[in-house]
Amino acid sequence: MAGKKPVFLVIGAGAGIGAHAAARFAAGGYHAVLARRSNEDSLARLVRQIEDDGGTASGTLLNAAEDGSIEELVERIERDIGPIDSALYNLGAQIGNRTLENTPHKTFELGWRLACFGVFRLAHAMFPAMAERGKGSLLVTSATAAMRGNAGQHSHAAAMAGRRMLCQTLNAEFAAKGIHVAHVVVDGAVNSPETLGKLLGDNWERFKESLGADGIIDPAALAETYWHLAQQPKNCWSHEVDVRPHSEVPWWNDNPNPQIDS
Amino acid sequence: MAGKKPVFLVIGAGAGIGAHAAARFAAGGYHAVLARRSNEDSLARLVRQIEDDGGTASGTLLNAAEDGSIEELVERIERDIGPIDSALYNLGAQIGNRTLENTPHKTFELGWRLACFGVFRLAHAMFPAMAERGKGSLLVTSATAAMRGNAGQHSHAAAMAGRRMLCQTLNAEFAAKGIHVAHVVVDGAVNSPETLGKLLGDNWERFKESLGADGIIDPAALAETYWHLAQQPKNCWSHEVDVRPHSEVPWWNDNPNPQIDS
Amino acid sequence: MAGKKPVFLVIGAGAGIGAHAAARFAAGGYHAVLARRSNEDSLARLVRQIEDDGGTASGTLLNAAEDGSIEELVERIERDIGPIDSALYNLGAQIGNRTLENTPHKTFELGWRLACFGVFRLAHAMFPAMAERGKGSLLVTSATAAMRGNAGQHSHAAAMAGRRMLCQTLNAEFAAKGIHVAHVVVDGAVNSPETLGKLLGDNWERFKESLGADGIIDPAALAETYWHLAQQPKNCWSHEVDVRPHSEVPWWNDNPNPQIDS
Amino acid sequence: MAGKKPVFLVIGAGAGIGAHAAARFAAGGYHAVLARRSNEDSLARLVRQIEDDGGTASGTLLNAAEDGSIEELVERIERDIGPIDSALYNLGAQIGNRTLENTPHKTFELGWRLACFGVFRLAHAMFPAMAERGKGSLLVTSATAAMRGNAGQHSHAAAMAGRRMLCQTLNAEFAAKGIHVAHVVVDGAVNSPETLGKLLGDNWERFKESLGADGIIDPAALAETYWHLAQQPKNCWSHEVDVRPHSEVPWWNDNPNPQIDS
Repeated sequence: MAGKKPVFLVIGAGAGIGAHAAARFAAGGYHAVLARRSNEDSLARLVRQIEDDGGTASGTLLNAAEDGSIEELVERIERDIGPIDSALYNLGAQIGNRTLENTPHKTFELGWRLACFGVFRLAHAMFPAMAERGKGSLLVTSATAAMRGNAGQHSHAAAMAGRRMLCQTLNAEFAAKGIHVAHVVVDGAVNSPETLGKLLGDNWERFKESLGADGIIDPAALAETYWHLAQQPKNCWSHEVDVRPHSEVPWWNDNPNPQIDS
Repeated sequence: MAGKKPVFLVIGAGAGIGAHAAARFAAGGYHAVLARRSNEDSLARLVRQIEDDGGTASGTLLNAAEDGSIEELVERIERDIGPIDSALYNLGAQIGNRTLENTPHKTFELGWRLACFGVFRLAHAMFPAMAERGKGSLLVTSATAAMRGNAGQHSHAAAMAGRRMLCQTLNAEFAAKGIHVAHVVVDGAVNSPETLGKLLGDNWERFKESLGADGIIDPAALAETYWHLAQQPKNCWSHEVDVRPHSEVPWWNDNPNPQIDS
Repeated sequence: MAGKKPVFLVIGAGAGIGAHAAARFAAGGYHAVLARRSNEDSLARLVRQIEDDGGTASGTLLNAAEDGSIEELVERIERDIGPIDSALYNLGAQIGNRTLENTPHKTFELGWRLACFGVFRLAHAMFPAMAERGKGSLLVTSATAAMRGNAGQHSHAAAMAGRRMLCQTLNAEFAAKGIHVAHVVVDGAVNSPETLGKLLGDNWERFKESLGADGIIDPAALAETYWHLAQQPKNCWSHEVDVRPHSEVPWWNDNPNPQIDS
Repeated sequence: MAGKKPVFLVIGAGAGIGAHAAARFAAGGYHAVLARRSNEDSLARLVRQIEDDGGTASGTLLNAAEDGSIEELVERIERDIGPIDSALYNLGAQIGNRTLENTPHKTFELGWRLACFGVFRLAHAMFPAMAERGKGSLLVTSATAAMRGNAGQHSHAAAMAGRRMLCQTLNAEFAAKGIHVAHVVVDGAVNSPETLGKLLGDNWERFKESLGADGIIDPAALAETYWHLAQQPKNCWSHEVDVRPHSEVPWWNDNPNPQIDS
């Protein structure tokens, strides 16, 4: 039970970023609500883990692409658990690289639905009450696809860039009303077994080894940055932050021909 | 009739940018195909104007938001008129400023459908033949909403930013195949009676007067820049270009408190 | 005395950001070295304040624009006090708005010397030892002039933009060697009596009142963000972060004519 | 002799971009003034070439890094030849990749002096008369180093980024006064035997072959874009334009690990 705790909602609560953010906020005195598409067992484990560590949490399955789903969840939390103080939108729409020909209309639309429309719907449902309370935050896990469009990323880049600009329009309307919107550009692989791990399958362990100990983002470290952002006082808010491993080449640095950097 | 002329397709052929671009390309030896949502009379006038000036053109009504419409048009042109050499996507989704509360889900989705999904669908339908011919260009009229999200622009900014990144992913895949994608950020009012003029209604004439002779973009001048872009040789292509009147403050310059620019 | 404490060096240790950062790092177990241009009394007060709070600190006067000054300081600290673990370059070159005509060559050059060349010289002097130790951080207080050039900011913007790109080249060479470079874009007024306060003179108190309690950045809050950045583990580093009061319009949002945001 | 022709001044008139821009403007009715550091023979050849093609031109040696040199040249042209209508600042400061350790203070300063301070000095000397005439343009050849800092580019990136922001501050002050400032990001190798050719030395021919016919920017094509920019009417000015060969990967696209574009 949340009791008088502020609520921290995670949409996209896999075992990586979502779970660690939930754990961090729970450790900081929040009641964590974890929402994810599927795998009730894993969800229950994440909740139990938080409780074992002395925190409180709830878990719920959520098909974020479905009309009304996010809306219903927000309403239910506000009614049954408590006011949402902070939320993390942690759903991506990375589907690997696909040529234009191999990106059907439906795929392009689904990418937008998950990565862009979902943030809009969450804000639409959640911000009125936050604005009335004059207080709240929305953290958004983003990717470098929001900053530039690489080959094969038609669906992902279009969706993430829309999401980034939406974060700016939300900030423009709601910052003065006390709602902190933070867009976090994750520029590097994250140690997330249930998303990147699944995507890479059998190559996952070898991939992690190739990056070295500090070459892959520890979701617990990223959770610490989310926590920092959500705790910044109103006079000193960050809107956009990037993170990457020290060994990662940032997205803006390509140097295929080092002799003639133009 | 196009005869052996290359075809220039304009989607969003109002009396402003679209019509002037069509006229410029027609004057340069293209057969122009003008597509717009409604107003057959105006469309016929624009076609006749081009013919009176010695060019050739066709007009067609098009509901770009409708499934299959763009696809059918591309197929029809390639079959009945000739190979599309260059296209201008000139549809926007500016609906004026709306608070989040006054931006229904449907509105947000329609903005994306017109401003972002439409470009994807056009490229999807048109690029395979262009790539096979190793030659073609896609010009995209854009707005500063693609660069940053202002208050009240939830729908527009999210859609235009998605469109901008899509232009980058299209360029990343198709530039080496000979297709030139150019994203033109129009940062200022355009002398376009059928779009901005309608939006402002009775204030239109007063608004133009307030800007002065060189304070509003002449669509004929912008058409000249489009023409220049489409004629750049393959060794020297521009991907992103901005335009504004000399008297317009660029989007990145706000200076509400000139004494303490931080 | 530093003893076995890691050293935190602040160049530009006024009573605002510099002093609060020094205090925060001292509270976190660092020995703070405060360097500033002038006013030994104020410097001594800042050092004593840190000592009164149970920390350790040293103060030194420094003319950063003078050849050899930064170099000598770095050498002296490494030799006499201890290895520099983290440094904050907190010198700006804001001189208010000046037309081109009223920006003499000397002024433009001095802006570059303080805001850009100084960072280069500090890195040049300090990074070799840090790279050898495989550990260190350089925090840079920046401004929106690094992101876009406003009217009247010829000297400031050119210098700050050079500084920003220098931070990127430093990061590109030294991140993999364990040195964390973070560029913090401060987009709003800071409650700094010795810099902005002096600039505004008699208007300072009225200016602060006009902004309201949470409308001006509390340097202690910003110091907390610096602390967070310097403590991020190597697998999750931020390179660029912005901060502003919730009530501040971000630099990318201008909206002089809300009806026709282009 | 210029007679009543408008003057086009090129600072950095090598056989590549500078010479072709001069030739293009001369063909368009300008009197071209070519200024370069050294090699009077080559300079004389470029002038004669323009004259052979029916245009008029003058050549002069110029050490742009020297105090007073640019200022004296501008004064001399305005007095002896005619009003400068358009100028191209075509000096770069690319010195190849150097580690921080191998970038002496003097090198860093010289980069700034040539690539950033020189533009400031040119504008300072040339803009007052242009502003009085209410007409003029300054074209600036830029590089991707102005957009992001790659490893080894400490001097170049800091200087070019300063130059880019300076172009924005100049535009902010002078656009409304009729002076068009255009910053052209050249993102790819240019077929310029006297600069890139010299840098690559014996590898120059092999390098060009490796790029293919349309893989290297033809300076004549780039000159056409400069011409277009300088001819844009006041209601439709471009401030920032990029160019690259169709086969060049844009600076914002790196994709070392296509499976996990973050």
